[in-house]
Amino acid sequence: MSYILGIDIGGTFLKGEVLKDGSPVSGSETPTDLSDLAGCVEAFAEKLAMGCGARFSEISGVGIGCPGVIDDGTGTVVRAANLGLENYPLRAELEKRLGLPVKIGNDANCAALGEAAFGAGKDVKNSILVTLGTGVGGGIVIDGKLFTGNRGAGAEIGHMVIEKDGEKCTCGRRGCLEAYCSASALTRATREAMENDTSSAMWRTYTHSDCDGRTAFEYMDSDPSAKRVVDTYINRLACGLVNLANIFRPQVILIGGGVSAQGTRLTAPLQRIVDGEMFAAEYAPVEIRCASLGNRAGALGAAALFL
Amino acid sequence: MSYILGIDIGGTFLKGEVLKDGSPVSGSETPTDLSDLAGCVEAFAEKLAMGCGARFSEISGVGIGCPGVIDDGTGTVVRAANLGLENYPLRAELEKRLGLPVKIGNDANCAALGEAAFGAGKDVKNSILVTLGTGVGGGIVIDGKLFTGNRGAGAEIGHMVIEKDGEKCTCGRRGCLEAYCSASALTRATREAMENDTSSAMWRTYTHSDCDGRTAFEYMDSDPSAKRVVDTYINRLACGLVNLANIFRPQVILIGGGVSAQGTRLTAPLQRIVDGEMFAAEYAPVEIRCASLGNRAGALGAAALFL
Repeated sequence: MSYILGIDIGGTFLKGEVLKDGSPVSGSETPTDLSDLAGCVEAFAEKLAMGCGARFSEISGVGIGCPGVIDDGTGTVVRAANLGLENYPLRAELEKRLGLPVKIGNDANCAALGEAAFGAGKDVKNSILVTLGTGVGGGIVIDGKLFTGNRGAGAEIGHMVIEKDGEKCTCGRRGCLEAYCSASALTRATREAMENDTSSAMWRTYTHSDCDGRTAFEYMDSDPSAKRVVDTYINRLACGLVNLANIFRPQVILIGGGVSAQGTRLTAPLQRIVDGEMFAAEYAPVEIRCASLGNRAGALGAAALFL
Repeated sequence: MSYILGIDIGGTFLKGEVLKDGSPVSGSETPTDLSDLAGCVEAFAEKLAMGCGARFSEISGVGIGCPGVIDDGTGTVVRAANLGLENYPLRAELEKRLGLPVKIGNDANCAALGEAAFGAGKDVKNSILVTLGTGVGGGIVIDGKLFTGNRGAGAEIGHMVIEKDGEKCTCGRRGCLEAYCSASALTRATREAMENDTSSAMWRTYTHSDCDGRTAFEYMDSDPSAKRVVDTYINRLACGLVNLANIFRPQVILIGGGVSAQGTRLTAPLQRIVDGEMFAAEYAPVEIRCASLGNRAGALGAAALFL
């Protein structure tokens, strides 16, 4: 029997998964103790191992997904503002505590690897995950392995400008994909549309503060303002996806994060635009799919760093 | 002694290079005979081998760079409009004729590999070549190997939209890097600037038809219209380079093609913008350099397919 543990570090919870002979067998979570992160991860790893009856000698490694800039070569957390970490040698610290091999990757990158290994991309070797949440993140899988660039600083999919001198982005540039296609950007666009059209069905139902990334999709069939918000959102997202397809030409692009709950209302129009605009589209098509693992993807991908 | 031949197929000339024990020893060229391309390449390969005194048994392979969409897995020229080829099994045909192992790559991709193996990127393992010529092409080298995407259809660096709904591009989309940053686009912008400012020094010296991609750079120090053309060009190019840096985070980005003759007038401002805008720039910097092999890069990179 061989086991691999995967732990996805979040600011609020640690999520854990166990692979037994390469297949997921169980998942669980525990609150994150930011005052003693390494101790908290250590204790959780032990709990995960005990929970599935794995002996220490049967565990071949512990994979960690961590937010922020991660130097996956050295296992250092270069900067993770949410966790209050800077230049922290998390891999070395955990290897010392656990006495096991540890690998670390950025959490969004791990999610991409998780989907590629066990989720919606498991039938292909080249995939990209684009996560539409608070920001736009994701990861790139080439020949079944994560691609992260020099010192792990690449794969910043969200920080690709698609509209030069456009909306201000958190990264300091203007017009990044993230500035238009995060769930936050979608919510903001929905609010603006409601305020500009007080005859809209959205305006009658929602207040300024309780609309979110779902509101425009919910009303798109009956409310022209909502439809415009969705169409603009999808057009910009498609622009970014076609860029990624022209540069990487994966076999599939997976859409994750909260907005992906819209399913084919999102993927069908994206697929149409990608098929129509991509370079040499018929020769080497790219399929747009929703991710399938939800918030388990990160921990499963962290474990998959050892596959 | 071990030899590798590299041949870069152009619509007008075949360019050839020979590697002896991994190092370039000689280059030459011959007119392309489009009516019998395989025969022409075969004869040129034999001439290259004879020219350097290589015995047949000492030649370990023949690398070919070819324009168009190339399936590097199967060695098929999927589509090369300039050569009048479609779904042509060039590798199989040449292996049959030459009795030697043959590998084929897209010519721009081969140029990137050539610069990475023997040129301005030879000190790093991860580099991107961006070629500013009739179009915007290039290639991506990861861990010393070409990255071309599924069926060789990726690495279309020029067809990344940086300005949604912007200038029409040859690929059918709007706002691609190529639509702004090819030498042709620069020439077009220069013409427009001349026509809009007939007091400009450019207008006094050049006519509509004899200005080119060098004109604005030549006058940028004395002519505000020329300066604006150059600044706009560099800003857009930098936008594309920062995108590539955020996604791939190579160690260097090499600028090739005719416009790269401008040297530091081009690379110095590009470097400033990349340093200022790139994600985690200080942590994992990207150096902007001019390519160094000129039109030898393609044939050298074709040979390097065997390294």
